[in-house]
Amino acid sequence: MSKIEKFVESITPRDEDFARWYTDICLGAELCSYSSVRGCIILRPYGYAIWELITAELDRRFKDTGHQNVMMPLFIPESMLQKEKDHVEGFAPEVAWVTHGGETPLTERLCVRPTSEVLFCDHYAEIIQSWRDLPKLYNQWVSVVRWEKTTRPFLRTREFFWQEGHTAHATKEDAVEETLRMLDIYEDFYRDALAIPVLKGLKSDSERFAGAVDTYTVEAMMHDGKALQAGTSHYLGDGFAKAFNIQYTDKDNQLRYVHQTSWGVSSRSIGGLIMVHGDDEGLVLPPAVAPIQVVIIPIATHKEGVLEEATKLRDVLKGTGLRVLLDDSDRMPGWKFSEHEMKGVPIRLEIGPRDIAQNQCVAVARDNRKKVFIALDRVAEEVPVLLDALHDRMLERAEKSMRERIYDVEQLEAFVRTMEEKPGFIRAYWCGSAECEAEIKELTTATSRCIEEGGDVEGRVCVVCGKEAHHSVFWGKAY
Amino acid sequence: MSKIEKFVESITPRDEDFARWYTDICLGAELCSYSSVRGCIILRPYGYAIWELITAELDRRFKDTGHQNVMMPLFIPESMLQKEKDHVEGFAPEVAWVTHGGETPLTERLCVRPTSEVLFCDHYAEIIQSWRDLPKLYNQWVSVVRWEKTTRPFLRTREFFWQEGHTAHATKEDAVEETLRMLDIYEDFYRDALAIPVLKGLKSDSERFAGAVDTYTVEAMMHDGKALQAGTSHYLGDGFAKAFNIQYTDKDNQLRYVHQTSWGVSSRSIGGLIMVHGDDEGLVLPPAVAPIQVVIIPIATHKEGVLEEATKLRDVLKGTGLRVLLDDSDRMPGWKFSEHEMKGVPIRLEIGPRDIAQNQCVAVARDNRKKVFIALDRVAEEVPVLLDALHDRMLERAEKSMRERIYDVEQLEAFVRTMEEKPGFIRAYWCGSAECEAEIKELTTATSRCIEEGGDVEGRVCVVCGKEAHHSVFWGKAY
Repeated sequence: MSKIEKFVESITPRDEDFARWYTDICLGAELCSYSSVRGCIILRPYGYAIWELITAELDRRFKDTGHQNVMMPLFIPESMLQKEKDHVEGFAPEVAWVTHGGETPLTERLCVRPTSEVLFCDHYAEIIQSWRDLPKLYNQWVSVVRWEKTTRPFLRTREFFWQEGHTAHATKEDAVEETLRMLDIYEDFYRDALAIPVLKGLKSDSERFAGAVDTYTVEAMMHDGKALQAGTSHYLGDGFAKAFNIQYTDKDNQLRYVHQTSWGVSSRSIGGLIMVHGDDEGLVLPPAVAPIQVVIIPIATHKEGVLEEATKLRDVLKGTGLRVLLDDSDRMPGWKFSEHEMKGVPIRLEIGPRDIAQNQCVAVARDNRKKVFIALDRVAEEVPVLLDALHDRMLERAEKSMRERIYDVEQLEAFVRTMEEKPGFIRAYWCGSAECEAEIKELTTATSRCIEEGGDVEGRVCVVCGKEAHHSVFWGKAY
Repeated sequence: MSKIEKFVESITPRDEDFARWYTDICLGAELCSYSSVRGCIILRPYGYAIWELITAELDRRFKDTGHQNVMMPLFIPESMLQKEKDHVEGFAPEVAWVTHGGETPLTERLCVRPTSEVLFCDHYAEIIQSWRDLPKLYNQWVSVVRWEKTTRPFLRTREFFWQEGHTAHATKEDAVEETLRMLDIYEDFYRDALAIPVLKGLKSDSERFAGAVDTYTVEAMMHDGKALQAGTSHYLGDGFAKAFNIQYTDKDNQLRYVHQTSWGVSSRSIGGLIMVHGDDEGLVLPPAVAPIQVVIIPIATHKEGVLEEATKLRDVLKGTGLRVLLDDSDRMPGWKFSEHEMKGVPIRLEIGPRDIAQNQCVAVARDNRKKVFIALDRVAEEVPVLLDALHDRMLERAEKSMRERIYDVEQLEAFVRTMEEKPGFIRAYWCGSAECEAEIKELTTATSRCIEEGGDVEGRVCVVCGKEAHHSVFWGKAY
């Protein structure tokens, strides 16, 4: 409590210092706390409750599409990590190594999983024998560890929380279909649960996941115009299958390698929620992932009947399945308003003696603070409507903000100037060469975020070298 | 599938070789798989689904009693682990040490958490200032690591899954009350969700958690008469608070140390489920934690109307909120019966042309295989009744099995003989000295499981030394 009150008074204005504003919200809304373990954060009850809701939203979508949860070990033996060459090159430099069990040195080092492709492969090699065993559609909810040098809450921490899906299929077509299905599920999750629009597309070779054939991504634009890679879905081909000898007997009794995918969304998504929707008063949460969807604040609680009516309101709303808090603490209403605004509670209901006399209460939406009077016997019907409208406004606002800040640029000089002057993404044509991509990064620090789906490149030329363009690409500075 | 069929034919009879029977069930019911990471298992979809249901059952009870979930880091710096002396002595010999991040040696070793008391303490020292901040009732769902030498699926693995509750209170009374509340919640969970009766009580000093003042335990008896420590709840006193300087200002403006508790139940509980309820056909699951509560097996699926009626049955039962599987695969019904018995599905519904003609289906309970005919329009009412009755029978059977195998013994010779000849627990009086306890362990390998609540020791003498008894104690060999 003491923390919130401190921060409610001292939150940095968002457009003055976005990075400090972000940290103020993380701490002030009590989402997380720095820990004594360098680079790792503590998820506090409110932050963890958001993560639980995110988990439930994604998990439901995974189960509806036939996926099953499993749990692989936390550790990977060094020799197992080394089996797929590209993969180990990508991850070995940033893993944490366990070398001792108690006093005893291990005969083989174990790394703490940075991602679990190799563990799933090792298991798949054991349990897949026939075409009848396919597809295998597995997922796990775990934390993974990458030894990052600079860290920021939710966006980049040494330990982070995520789901990682790992699937095995009989054919390339099945695996590619799965890769794209999961990308669509991620888009749907971001729009429908987090009210965050995303750009979907293929990553360039240099941004591809270590060991993948194709990496697809969903990219979101933050309030400051920077990109957040919000989820990725990889078509792994049969490279891992060959390294781990994952073969099955097909209907014609032929031995074949499986084709695989992997895909993940992490606790970064909480960082995205903050940076897309938050404002100078604090967090703004879309209803689907708000631990408290409605807070009821009684006014003049000492007056007869106020607490009783507020309690009735709470019970009615809880009965509809909403997550409701009646804040009957002894603090002043103004303090309560500030705290619940800081925490991003979507709807605040105020009820005092005058409201009761008129058989109504006052609803205030977190985003636009518009007041609506609701008849007390209409609350169960009206509040869900307000919540839906709030979600739609949040999504629309984010969508507009992103669309308005995608700049089409055809020349390198304009590219550099635009990236310097205007926060946002640039859409520009690209020949496909790593050199041109590297030059843009060198000149602007921006990277290719994704290749536009169905981008028409007919007759277009690369923004860097002027040669024939093969892709229309979204570029941006990224978290 | 191939695995199950192999095991359905080759499961070791339970009373011939209990250890092999146990492993056969773990693998045959596809609960888990050995991994290439020594001492760690893979939770397969069916095993993980049981764990998800166990998690939900416990989590609901925790939230109903005001607890909140959080997430602490995976790692503990060596210096933090060392702050509480008894605690570090207990755990340091069996922790996994991380010494390198990528190529770089760490300036301070980190252990992978074996339990998280010190991480919670470090956090509590930061967030607790005033009596208004108390109590803090936190819990987390994580895996922990202990470098065990010999391991067995679910019962003892290097990585295992659990919840760990960590609470801080203003007074000793509040903390002791919480310790006992959580013990009661564990008992309720075991009885009502897992149909497993437990003995509740205090641990002896030698069996106490490292760093605790008092450790309470729930102990269950397995089919082979051995004990499973099924959950523990610790009153930690203010020792950790002093080591970590967790102080608060009370209402009189005095600085005071908090009093703490911690408590945990782990994935061992799945081992308990297997060893209490399983039989020669496989697993027997209580309905509350059965991933599939009802399996519908259509007979003569080629006959007109059978699949349609089976599908209707499924939809009706799903509509009541039950977890239902319609097994319409092309295997013979006998194979399906065996598979779902192996997996411990509580109720099997059979429906064939003759049943349909008589407007009924056949229900078979997993435990006693009694057949009941149910009118098709009564299925939604009758099946839940069958499930409840099955739970009650399972609990009653387990209760009887435990009660019948608790032997009252007053002399050491009889103690040793009984422990050799009769699987089960012994209830015997004890003076309270570590020497007498050690002698029993030396002579029998049995340990004190817990001190009987309200055990009357008036005029009784210690079974070992013959001196005045201070406790009535349950003794047993333990997993």
